[in-house]
Amino acid sequence: MTPAVTVEEHARRIEQLLAPVIESLGAEPVPLASALGCLTVANIRSDVDLPLFRNSQMDGFAVRAIDVASAPIALEVTGDIPAGHAAPVALIAGTALRIMTGAPMPTGADTVIPVEDTELVLGRDDALEGAIVTVARARSAGEFVRERGSDLRRGDLLLPAGTRLAPRHLAALAAAGVSHVDVRRRLRVGVITTGAELVADDEELALGRIFDANRIALAAGIAETGAIVSIATSSDDDPVTFRRVLDEVIGASDLVITSGGVSKGAFEVVREVLEPLGASVGSVAMQPGGPQGTAVVDSVPVVCFPGNPVSTQVSFAVFLAPILRRVAGLPARSAETRTLASPVQSVAGKRQFLRGVASDDGTVALVSGPSSHLVAAMARADVLIDIPVETTRLEAGESVAVWML
Amino acid sequence: MTPAVTVEEHARRIEQLLAPVIESLGAEPVPLASALGCLTVANIRSDVDLPLFRNSQMDGFAVRAIDVASAPIALEVTGDIPAGHAAPVALIAGTALRIMTGAPMPTGADTVIPVEDTELVLGRDDALEGAIVTVARARSAGEFVRERGSDLRRGDLLLPAGTRLAPRHLAALAAAGVSHVDVRRRLRVGVITTGAELVADDEELALGRIFDANRIALAAGIAETGAIVSIATSSDDDPVTFRRVLDEVIGASDLVITSGGVSKGAFEVVREVLEPLGASVGSVAMQPGGPQGTAVVDSVPVVCFPGNPVSTQVSFAVFLAPILRRVAGLPARSAETRTLASPVQSVAGKRQFLRGVASDDGTVALVSGPSSHLVAAMARADVLIDIPVETTRLEAGESVAVWML
Repeated sequence: MTPAVTVEEHARRIEQLLAPVIESLGAEPVPLASALGCLTVANIRSDVDLPLFRNSQMDGFAVRAIDVASAPIALEVTGDIPAGHAAPVALIAGTALRIMTGAPMPTGADTVIPVEDTELVLGRDDALEGAIVTVARARSAGEFVRERGSDLRRGDLLLPAGTRLAPRHLAALAAAGVSHVDVRRRLRVGVITTGAELVADDEELALGRIFDANRIALAAGIAETGAIVSIATSSDDDPVTFRRVLDEVIGASDLVITSGGVSKGAFEVVREVLEPLGASVGSVAMQPGGPQGTAVVDSVPVVCFPGNPVSTQVSFAVFLAPILRRVAGLPARSAETRTLASPVQSVAGKRQFLRGVASDDGTVALVSGPSSHLVAAMARADVLIDIPVETTRLEAGESVAVWML
Repeated sequence: MTPAVTVEEHARRIEQLLAPVIESLGAEPVPLASALGCLTVANIRSDVDLPLFRNSQMDGFAVRAIDVASAPIALEVTGDIPAGHAAPVALIAGTALRIMTGAPMPTGADTVIPVEDTELVLGRDDALEGAIVTVARARSAGEFVRERGSDLRRGDLLLPAGTRLAPRHLAALAAAGVSHVDVRRRLRVGVITTGAELVADDEELALGRIFDANRIALAAGIAETGAIVSIATSSDDDPVTFRRVLDEVIGASDLVITSGGVSKGAFEVVREVLEPLGASVGSVAMQPGGPQGTAVVDSVPVVCFPGNPVSTQVSFAVFLAPILRRVAGLPARSAETRTLASPVQSVAGKRQFLRGVASDDGTVALVSGPSSHLVAAMARADVLIDIPVETTRLEAGESVAVWML
């Protein structure tokens, strides 16, 4: 066992352990339909003008402004330009063309009279041919016309590198004809929970056995931070089993998280297997979550958490969630300040993360005790109360830092 | 056309339209591994005590407190209780049993001496049989023992109804042996974008045609609010095509969103098909997004948005995202107050939603103009600036309400 390090030191160690993996993540092209929440890796410039062509902003009549300057005035309607119209159309001076929103402006026309400002008398057999439109008011040249490139010009920046793709970004990409986008590859994170006491999926509960809370807690935590769960599985305390499972998970993952098997007991399978491979396993000055480890196996970083369910969850929240969120482009969470509803005891020399419930009145109350097996109490909490390493007691009414769960 | 209604009136109409669907959504059982972010529909009580059995909080030695009251004292070690141990073990008075964290406490023992407070001399051939442990300090009865049910008792509330399942909730369910959880069924929302100008996936761009920005914008928006995109597809302006597509999408959806085809033009396919079925299509006093509609077809609500891409996105943000977020148990978004960086013009009689960028200094600046075709500018915005219906001008430095995108 190496001597106890601080939470900050261990967090830095994990940062350094993951830095090469994160730096070499690279990019992959994904279709827009799968890109929500992904992170662009480079500036994306538009290959087209937006709008693609000069078009009408309104349903109405395309005219020359000069022909309606003395409105009210009646003009002959010489045709129709629906949206999606393919053939280029020219306006005959002194006449009008009916036009739909988004339809290409006819050459020669410089304004659109909205349908609300017109009255249409159809021709024989209610045909548009021979119809007469009366325009109620004059318009300046350019009104209700969307010029080609008025939103964005070809070559302009469409989205900067590092954009976390929201619906409005995907809409802009789609509008510019982009079907695939290069995004940062998502981290594939594997999970191995350890312990002979864990009941496997196909086993019955027996004395001394427990259901595995850590596998789902870690897998869901990984998914919540935008990474991919490569494999989430379990191992008993047999080193041969653990090594076999580890090799399988490492082969599918950029990062592996283990739970359990790193403390001072007699059957510490993670420590037993990883220490000969150069792992650093030791004590971090925190509660819950004291025993922690890091290793690199076949170039894949392995982060080892203790096995008590609350320890595992707090370790993930403190050491990995901030890194995974940053990699996924999610905003960093920062501590908030709350007022203690009741006094708190803590252990000197350990940074304590107590489970609490924050109220709308700015106070925070403890949920149950500090013990790391209280997994149901953890579910009732909505914050971790962060008690500094040197503090042994805080009174009701004192300020504390809390981290939202 | 019905006369213009206010944004608030149209929002209430959509609320009422969706209320029966939301009320009848019902529940479905899902495995824990698929339940992240889902909403529990009923109180979940525990079928078991947690912990399941009395167990050790530490790696160390199970003893009787009375036997170590005069510590330091040496005790014979009579065996080993690893975690996962199945057979019940009894402690012989005056001796110790080595025990691992989480292992079942032997009957007769009432405390655990942490390994740090002990020194072990192994027996012949380094065997645990015949070993002697020296206990450095006394402990009270109950120390380092986790009593059965001390976290939660069988029948106690594990999670209340309406819990949006986070990793810590899934961990507690798993710990209690729950493998499936009844959650509110997610809304299946279908999308039909309309317009002869939309280029289909297998088509080349041509004059007058545009790429479809609305399909991905709506699909991604639906996914972001926790609902399921049943089908996202498109139709041209032919009523027969639209009706066929509508029937297909309705069959797979609890709610259908359309874009386009609801304004005053000559080829308004959504209005043309839905008005004979009782749709209400009319004008809402807002910009962008004026033309809006609602219908019920085969008992499925249909919400009709205008087709300009910015209008579609703003309509979704204003009318549907708040409802879908509430159904998914996501927190409601509330408006924030910012200071205008420059003057703003608005149209009397219309509530205006302008695209803006909020700065850390509390100001908000306009992004490009108010026109509803500026889809690239929309991508650069991070807020909608909400200009009240009666306001026609605001000066730089005045306060405005903004909605985060």
